[in-house]
Amino acid sequence: MAARLTAADPAARWSRDEHERGVALVLEDGDVWEKGCASVTLIEDSVLSNARADAISGRTGIDGVVAGARYSAAALSFVLHARSPLVPTLRGDVRWFKVGAHEWYGGGLDLTPSYLFDDDCEHFHSRLRQLCESRGGGAESYRTMKAACDAYFWLPARAEHRGVGGIFYDDLAAPWAPDFSLALLDAALDPAGPYMPIVEIRRALAYTPAQREWQLTRRGRYVEFNLLYDRGVRFGLTPESVERVLVSSPPLTAWRFRAEPLPGTAEAELMAVLRTPREWA
Amino acid sequence: MAARLTAADPAARWSRDEHERGVALVLEDGDVWEKGCASVTLIEDSVLSNARADAISGRTGIDGVVAGARYSAAALSFVLHARSPLVPTLRGDVRWFKVGAHEWYGGGLDLTPSYLFDDDCEHFHSRLRQLCESRGGGAESYRTMKAACDAYFWLPARAEHRGVGGIFYDDLAAPWAPDFSLALLDAALDPAGPYMPIVEIRRALAYTPAQREWQLTRRGRYVEFNLLYDRGVRFGLTPESVERVLVSSPPLTAWRFRAEPLPGTAEAELMAVLRTPREWA
Repeated sequence: MAARLTAADPAARWSRDEHERGVALVLEDGDVWEKGCASVTLIEDSVLSNARADAISGRTGIDGVVAGARYSAAALSFVLHARSPLVPTLRGDVRWFKVGAHEWYGGGLDLTPSYLFDDDCEHFHSRLRQLCESRGGGAESYRTMKAACDAYFWLPARAEHRGVGGIFYDDLAAPWAPDFSLALLDAALDPAGPYMPIVEIRRALAYTPAQREWQLTRRGRYVEFNLLYDRGVRFGLTPESVERVLVSSPPLTAWRFRAEPLPGTAEAELMAVLRTPREWA
Repeated sequence: MAARLTAADPAARWSRDEHERGVALVLEDGDVWEKGCASVTLIEDSVLSNARADAISGRTGIDGVVAGARYSAAALSFVLHARSPLVPTLRGDVRWFKVGAHEWYGGGLDLTPSYLFDDDCEHFHSRLRQLCESRGGGAESYRTMKAACDAYFWLPARAEHRGVGGIFYDDLAAPWAPDFSLALLDAALDPAGPYMPIVEIRRALAYTPAQREWQLTRRGRYVEFNLLYDRGVRFGLTPESVERVLVSSPPLTAWRFRAEPLPGTAEAELMAVLRTPREWA
C-alpha cells in the first residue's frame, strides 16, 4: 500500500507510529495527498470489553459474542485526503473478528469528493460492483453493501451523507468473505482499480481559491462525522491512542457560517447528491 | 455587545440568523477576529424533555426538575476566534432556568490562548476574581468557579485542558446570582474588563507563519472539545439548529500528526499549563 502511494506521490513525507497492537503509517505534505494514513491493528486472544462488544455491532449477544468472551481481531484501515479539491478523499478498511468458533468480516471503501464528476462516481461504483460480482456475493451483495454505505456515512444534523458512498459491510460470515476482503484491499489502490484512475485524471486539473475554500468547508463535515458519529472514534479514544485514531482528520479544515451554495452551481450539484444518493452502477 | 465588537473591529462582516426561539449574530472576516458569534435563546413555559432534563445537570430530579415539567429558560452565549495567534479566543455565556417556583443561573467566561503570556492570564483571572469579590460570593466563589472551569474544559483523550480557564458555574441559586450574571455579561467585552485590554496589547504584535500553524492546530483541539465533549452541542444538533450551534467552530483548523512541541519552546510552555492548570489570581 505504501509502495503504491509512494509511486503515485514521491514528494510525500512518511512517519511511522508503532504501538503495542500494530503500526500506523502517516503520509503528510505530498503533491497529490496532503495527508493520509494506513493503520494495522492486531488483537490476539483478548477479553471482550463491554464497549468493544457493543462496537462490533450486530453480533453482540449471539454466537457467544458477549462481554467477557475471548476474541481475536485484525483490522487494516486507511484514509487519503487529496490536496486538490478536484481529487476526492478515499477511505477504506477491512476488519476480521473471531470469537470462539465463529469468525466474520467487515470492511468498505468509499469516496468523498468536494466536486461531483459523474464519470468518477460511475467508475468507482462500477469497479466495486465488478468486484462484488467476481469475488463477492454477486450484484445483490453490491446493492446491499452500497445501501449500507449510504446508511452509515450519514450526518443526521446536516441531513446529508458524507460522500458519494461505495460499499460497506459488517458481520459478514459468508464463505466468500475472506477472499472478497483481501480482493477489496488489493483493489483499493490498484492503478486500474476504483480510485487511482480518478486521481490520475483529476490531479492535473487547475483549481481556484474558491474551490479550495469549498473543499475546506466540506472537510469540516468530514470532521463532524468522525467526531460526532463514527463508531470507531468515540469508543477508542485514550491519550495513548488519540493520535493514531484522529490521524484520519483532514489536515486543514474550515467552518464558514451557512456555507450553503447558490442554486445552479457545481457546489449545489454535489449537495443534491449528498442529500439524495444516486445509483451509479 | 455587537456595538463593542464593531468599535474594536470595524472591518468585520455581520450576519443575523433569526429563529423561533432567538437570534444569533455572526461576525466573520474582521481584522481582529476571524470569526465570532453571539446568540440569544429564550424558551418560555415549555415542557422539559428527557434530554433537556439531563442537560441541565445537577438539578435533575430535585425541586421538581423532572422530564415533563414546565420550564422557562434564557441564554446568551458568545465565542470570539481571533485572527492573530497571539490574541486568545474568548468564550462566555449566561443561562437562566425556571421550573415551578425554583430558578437558578449558570454561566462562565474562559480564555483559550495559543501562546501563553503570564501577564494576560493574571489580568484575566484577577478581573474575574474582583468581579466575584464585588458582585458574587467573594474570593471563595472565585476559587470554586475557577476549579469548575478547569474541570469542565477538559479533553480526557488528550489529557489536557482546552485553555487557561476562567470561571464556570452551574445550578447557582444564591441571592447574588442574577446580579452577578448580569455583571459578568457586562464585563465580558468592557474595554477595561478581563478580555479587551489583552486584545489591545496583543493585536498589534507581528507573528510568524509557524505561530499561525500552531494556532490552527490548537483550534483543532477546540473542535475536538466541542464535538466530543461539550454538553450543549451533542444534544442540541438538528438540521434546524446545526448552523447556529456549530457557528462556535473556529474558521480555519488544522490537524497535524503528533503536533507535540519540542521542550523549551513557547508552544511547550503553553502545553505545560494546559496539562497542569496554574493559579493566576
